[in-house]
Amino acid sequence: MEQAEPRPRPEHAPALGDVSAPGRLAGPDEGISGAELALATRNHGLPLEALRHDTTPPGLHYVLVHYDIPYAPDGPGDRWTLTVEGLVDRPLTLDPAALRERPAVTHRVTLECAGNGRARLAPRPVSQPWLTEAVGTADWTGVPLADLLAEAGVRPGAVDVVATGADHGVERGVEQDYARSLSVAAATDPARGVLVAYAMNGAPLPPQHGRPLRLVVPGWYGMASVKWLRTLTVTDTPFTGFQQTVAYRYRQASGEPGDPVTLIAPRALMVPPGFPDFMTRTRVVRPGPVPLTGRAWSGHAPVARVEVSWDGERTWTDAEVTADPVRPWAWAAWHVTWHARPGPYTLTVRATDGAGHTQPLTAPWNRGGFGNNLVQRVELLCLA
Amino acid sequence: MEQAEPRPRPEHAPALGDVSAPGRLAGPDEGISGAELALATRNHGLPLEALRHDTTPPGLHYVLVHYDIPYAPDGPGDRWTLTVEGLVDRPLTLDPAALRERPAVTHRVTLECAGNGRARLAPRPVSQPWLTEAVGTADWTGVPLADLLAEAGVRPGAVDVVATGADHGVERGVEQDYARSLSVAAATDPARGVLVAYAMNGAPLPPQHGRPLRLVVPGWYGMASVKWLRTLTVTDTPFTGFQQTVAYRYRQASGEPGDPVTLIAPRALMVPPGFPDFMTRTRVVRPGPVPLTGRAWSGHAPVARVEVSWDGERTWTDAEVTADPVRPWAWAAWHVTWHARPGPYTLTVRATDGAGHTQPLTAPWNRGGFGNNLVQRVELLCLA
Repeated sequence: MEQAEPRPRPEHAPALGDVSAPGRLAGPDEGISGAELALATRNHGLPLEALRHDTTPPGLHYVLVHYDIPYAPDGPGDRWTLTVEGLVDRPLTLDPAALRERPAVTHRVTLECAGNGRARLAPRPVSQPWLTEAVGTADWTGVPLADLLAEAGVRPGAVDVVATGADHGVERGVEQDYARSLSVAAATDPARGVLVAYAMNGAPLPPQHGRPLRLVVPGWYGMASVKWLRTLTVTDTPFTGFQQTVAYRYRQASGEPGDPVTLIAPRALMVPPGFPDFMTRTRVVRPGPVPLTGRAWSGHAPVARVEVSWDGERTWTDAEVTADPVRPWAWAAWHVTWHARPGPYTLTVRATDGAGHTQPLTAPWNRGGFGNNLVQRVELLCLA
Repeated sequence: MEQAEPRPRPEHAPALGDVSAPGRLAGPDEGISGAELALATRNHGLPLEALRHDTTPPGLHYVLVHYDIPYAPDGPGDRWTLTVEGLVDRPLTLDPAALRERPAVTHRVTLECAGNGRARLAPRPVSQPWLTEAVGTADWTGVPLADLLAEAGVRPGAVDVVATGADHGVERGVEQDYARSLSVAAATDPARGVLVAYAMNGAPLPPQHGRPLRLVVPGWYGMASVKWLRTLTVTDTPFTGFQQTVAYRYRQASGEPGDPVTLIAPRALMVPPGFPDFMTRTRVVRPGPVPLTGRAWSGHAPVARVEVSWDGERTWTDAEVTADPVRPWAWAAWHVTWHARPGPYTLTVRATDGAGHTQPLTAPWNRGGFGNNLVQRVELLCLA
């Protein structure tokens, strides 16, 4: 990082492989590297005290940008076009204004990064080093993807809808615009409610959240919700792009095809009670009743149960869970009161969803570091 | 972090020292620790491509929160009071609405964290691990602090104005509300333009930027711009609080009183050209003219010169600098064109201000990791 002299010229003509290496696992005693830190200072999670907000204010919602944030002003004179093309009867070319003229739908959706929890794995996959905070909930406004596809007329034989953004870069040697697909069935499922969104919490999308247009795919990890959306292409074969078949796969070894990363696994998070130490983030409370509150969500089914332990996971107490049945894609709120006595504690919270999935007490490992929904553990000291 | 069992009870009654340790330096081969990572996933910098915006959109401006973001909704029924007290003739108790009724002033101000560049130091002070990105520029609207102090009537013998926020925590064993002081002269200097702000870029302050009220102290590192402002106390002795006399001092050794951290040292930053590799963030361009653009600022004086080197700091080319004379506290824009040929490069940019301060080519070290305005170096590959 502190290099003052140009690097030696490579023996070969300069090529992408000179700057872009295969994925790797950190060594047993390897701290977070400079490259991981550079990602952590760009991208950011939700400070857990912001779980208090039903919808996450701008700047507190998690952000993960693969390459650069494209520069797209959102004024009346600015040009941005979204095309709907491929296996359709009537290709569409739309600008954000044309989308705003269509009937608008607003969904409250909890989005979470598939890599959330990666930095708590051992060995640690080297990538964006999330702990537990890569989540946020917003009211997203836009046009149902199903409506746009119906307007374009999807032809028989259609398999996938490929969404391509303007976010351009290199990843493991592959130069690309970020692109992901959904099956036509998932893209048009009214129970899923996929949107082409142009507003977040009632305002135009902030640059880092996809200005001027993005997909929002409720229930799926965030990689499906393509930002800076340029093109929707209906295809007659399954999409095999980098982000679909190379990245975002559950693999135990690097040679495997792996299983695709799709729906969000259940997770509960707690607003850390009391107040923190600046450096260790350990919490401090005083004896007496301590309200414990937080949120819980799952992409598989509504949250059915949230349990909290304050005795080292020997016993669990059920929290009261409040979900809004008309907002099935938003997190639920939970609360329970703990009567604290002096001493050091580890508080643990875990969620179970209506499909029977419960958060594990040991981290589920895979080579990409995806879907680690290990329970949250909060270190705390109750003063005398 | 993965502890499943309660920690052993301490021999003594639980006390703050159990969770809060003295400052320390990282070991020679020590990667970023879990505690530093926990700060890096909460706080965040400005993704450098966002230097393209004259004012930084919410969520892209750097954020540094010492403890927790206080929960302060900003609606008409919400209660928040700011008191102006101490050595004044007429103590004031004001709510945000009362401030909004007063004549409003808007200043465009570049704020930078005093710890920016800390993670590039060797040995590295263990704290929030910024690289170079802890900066942002916003239009801040509020009431001049000088006006409020005049209204309250500062009495003869007044020395300092102490600003205390609602941000509560422990730091190196000291439980505290975050508090900092300015001299009465600095607090009321019309050439400095200190504000009690309630809006950022025309909207109410976001929670992480001080909702509902904060100080904005142009030209000073961000620690002076106290967020979640509750109290302004005029004192007849110099303030000796933790953030004034323990933290935020330039020290070579831990026992020294040190010099106070005050004005922002000059810095230029570049929008990294071309496109990045996801993991290494190394940039890729193609041969031909490459526009290089960015921003530069200093708290001492307007920026006088920005130079760029693409030959390993052997020669420097002057960039064209554009500053707005009516916005002396905002960053200046700069640009220059580089004609790229295939090969690997390190691009360097450095700023010089009108008071004669130039960014150094080697990092200025101090124990707290403050004011490291080492030049920015951007690793880049021009493809064949």
